[in-house]
Amino acid sequence: MNSIQNFSALVDHLKANEKKLRIAVVCGSDESTLTAVERALSEGFAEVIFSGHTERIQQRESLAQYADLITYVVPTGETDADAAKDAVQLVRNGEADILMKGLVNTDVLLRAVLNKEEGLLPRGKVLTHVTLAQLPQLDHLLFFTDVAVMPYPTQEQRAAQIEYTTNLCHAMGIECPKISLIHCSEKVSDKFPHTVGYAELKERAAAGEWGKVIVDGPLDVRTSLDAETLHTKGIVSPLEGKADVLVFPDIEAGNAFYKTITLLCGGDVAGMLCGTVCPVVLPSRGDSASDKFYSLAFAAIGCGV
Amino acid sequence: MNSIQNFSALVDHLKANEKKLRIAVVCGSDESTLTAVERALSEGFAEVIFSGHTERIQQRESLAQYADLITYVVPTGETDADAAKDAVQLVRNGEADILMKGLVNTDVLLRAVLNKEEGLLPRGKVLTHVTLAQLPQLDHLLFFTDVAVMPYPTQEQRAAQIEYTTNLCHAMGIECPKISLIHCSEKVSDKFPHTVGYAELKERAAAGEWGKVIVDGPLDVRTSLDAETLHTKGIVSPLEGKADVLVFPDIEAGNAFYKTITLLCGGDVAGMLCGTVCPVVLPSRGDSASDKFYSLAFAAIGCGV
Repeated sequence: MNSIQNFSALVDHLKANEKKLRIAVVCGSDESTLTAVERALSEGFAEVIFSGHTERIQQRESLAQYADLITYVVPTGETDADAAKDAVQLVRNGEADILMKGLVNTDVLLRAVLNKEEGLLPRGKVLTHVTLAQLPQLDHLLFFTDVAVMPYPTQEQRAAQIEYTTNLCHAMGIECPKISLIHCSEKVSDKFPHTVGYAELKERAAAGEWGKVIVDGPLDVRTSLDAETLHTKGIVSPLEGKADVLVFPDIEAGNAFYKTITLLCGGDVAGMLCGTVCPVVLPSRGDSASDKFYSLAFAAIGCGV
Repeated sequence: MNSIQNFSALVDHLKANEKKLRIAVVCGSDESTLTAVERALSEGFAEVIFSGHTERIQQRESLAQYADLITYVVPTGETDADAAKDAVQLVRNGEADILMKGLVNTDVLLRAVLNKEEGLLPRGKVLTHVTLAQLPQLDHLLFFTDVAVMPYPTQEQRAAQIEYTTNLCHAMGIECPKISLIHCSEKVSDKFPHTVGYAELKERAAAGEWGKVIVDGPLDVRTSLDAETLHTKGIVSPLEGKADVLVFPDIEAGNAFYKTITLLCGGDVAGMLCGTVCPVVLPSRGDSASDKFYSLAFAAIGCGV
C-alpha cells in the first residue's frame, strides 16, 4: 500500500474498504457531531449507534436516508453518565468499534472509559492522545502526542507513545516512520531528565522493539521538520528534517503546538485516545465538524482498516 | 504615543528618535550579524563597537561608509571568551548600551554575562528571554517568554517575566498590556502547580504591582489569541482573546511555540535577554539577518528609546 499523505487520501482509503465500522456516539446531539457522523455515513465507512439525546437526534431529517445504518439504544438511565456507560458497554460487548464523544462533559465520558471494572482501558495499558494534522506547509501528514490527557509522561508512557504512533503510521502505509523526541534544544541535559531518557528509547527502537521505525532526539520542532534548519545548525539526524511523528516532552508543549497550528497555520486535525480497547474520539469544544469527521476517519485507521 | 503594531513602525519610531545606541558586538564576523548591524547603522539608530574577529570584519567594504560610527576594540586576549569579556566590560563602563552575540558559542557569551563579579546580571535579578513576533495572522505584535534560557520558572521568576514584558509593552506605547498565563486548559489544577500560582499573580497585577496591566490565566494559546474560540468554549476573560503577551509555563512549551511560528507561520521575530543591566541580543544559529536586525530594534526599546 502507498502511504496516505493527506486527509482526502485517508477517506478514499476507507471508502475503498468494504468494512463498515460501528461508531457508538455518546450524547451526539450537537450540530458539529451530527454533521461529522452524517459525513461518515455518506462516505460509506460507518454505522452509528446513538446513546443518549436520542429524541433530539431523531428530529434531524437529513439522517432519515441512513436509517438502515443507525441504531438508537434505549438508555438504562436518564443522565449523560448513563449514556456514556451504555456506550462503553456496547464496545465491551463487541457491538461497537469506535467510541465518540458528543455534547457531554469530557470528565463524564472519561469516567466511564476509565472505570476499572467496566471501562475500556486494560490493566497496565497507557492511555494517551494522538493527533494527526494536515498542514498546508507540509507535504505529508504529521502525527503528534500528547496534547490532551497525559501531563508529564514517564519513560514507559513515552515508550507507549512511540509504540502507538508507530503502529498507526504502519497502518497508514508509512513503512518506516520517523519519530522525533522533542526538546527545546538538540543537547541532552541533566537539567531535563527526559532528554537523558531519549537515548534509551532510541536504543530500544534500534533494537526493533516497535518494528520498523527510526526514533531520534532530542530535536526541536524546526530541526524535526525542516532539513534546512537542521543543516544550518550543523546537526546530523537520521530523520533528516522529515519527521512523521513528534513526541512532545509534556502536555504544555504538545498543547501549545496543537493550538498554534489550528489557530495560525490553517491546519486540519484529527485526534483520538489510544491504549483503550477501541479508539476513542474525544473532540474538544470548538473543534469543527470537519475535525470531528477526520477524527472518525483516523479512528477507523486505529481499528486496523 | 500610539502603540507600535509592527516591525516597520518600530523602526520608524527609532529613526524618529535622535539618540544613537551603542551596540557592543561579540565576534560579529558572520554574514547575518554584519547585515543586521549594517542595517541598524543605515537606519540611523546605532553606533557599533566590534569586540573580537575585527580583522575579518574590517575587510567588509560596505562598512566603510559608516566608519565614523564604528569602533574596533583592541582585544585583551586571543580567544572568543576574551572578546566576550571585553564587550561586557564596555557595558559595565557605560560605554555600550546593548550587547549582541555574533559568531560565538552561546555558552561562552553567557559565561561572561553571568560572571558574578564582572558580569551583567545584578544580584537577585531574574534572567529571562523575551521574544517579539510579527505574524501575518495577527494584527498586532506578540510578546512571549521564555523560549530560550529559563527551564521551569518559579513563581518569582514568572513574576519577573510579567514585570519585564509589562515594561516593554509600556515602552512600545501599549498603555494597558494584556498578559496571558498559558496552560493546556483553562482550569486551575493541583496536578499543575503553576496554574495554582497564576491566581496569586493575577491578584498582584490587579493590586498594581506592575503598573497598568491586565493579567489572566490559565488560558491556552487559542483562547489567549482568538475571541471566537473563547466564546465557543464559553469562557470569560478580560483579555478577550487579544493577548499582547504569552507567558509560557515552561521552556518546552515556549520553544515549541517559537519554532512553530517561525517555521510554519511565516513570522518575523526579535528576541533579547532581560534582567541584565542592558539588553542582550542572543540570536540562535539559523536566525536570519532580518530577525537579528529586529532584535537590535527590540533591544533599543529595552533601553528605553
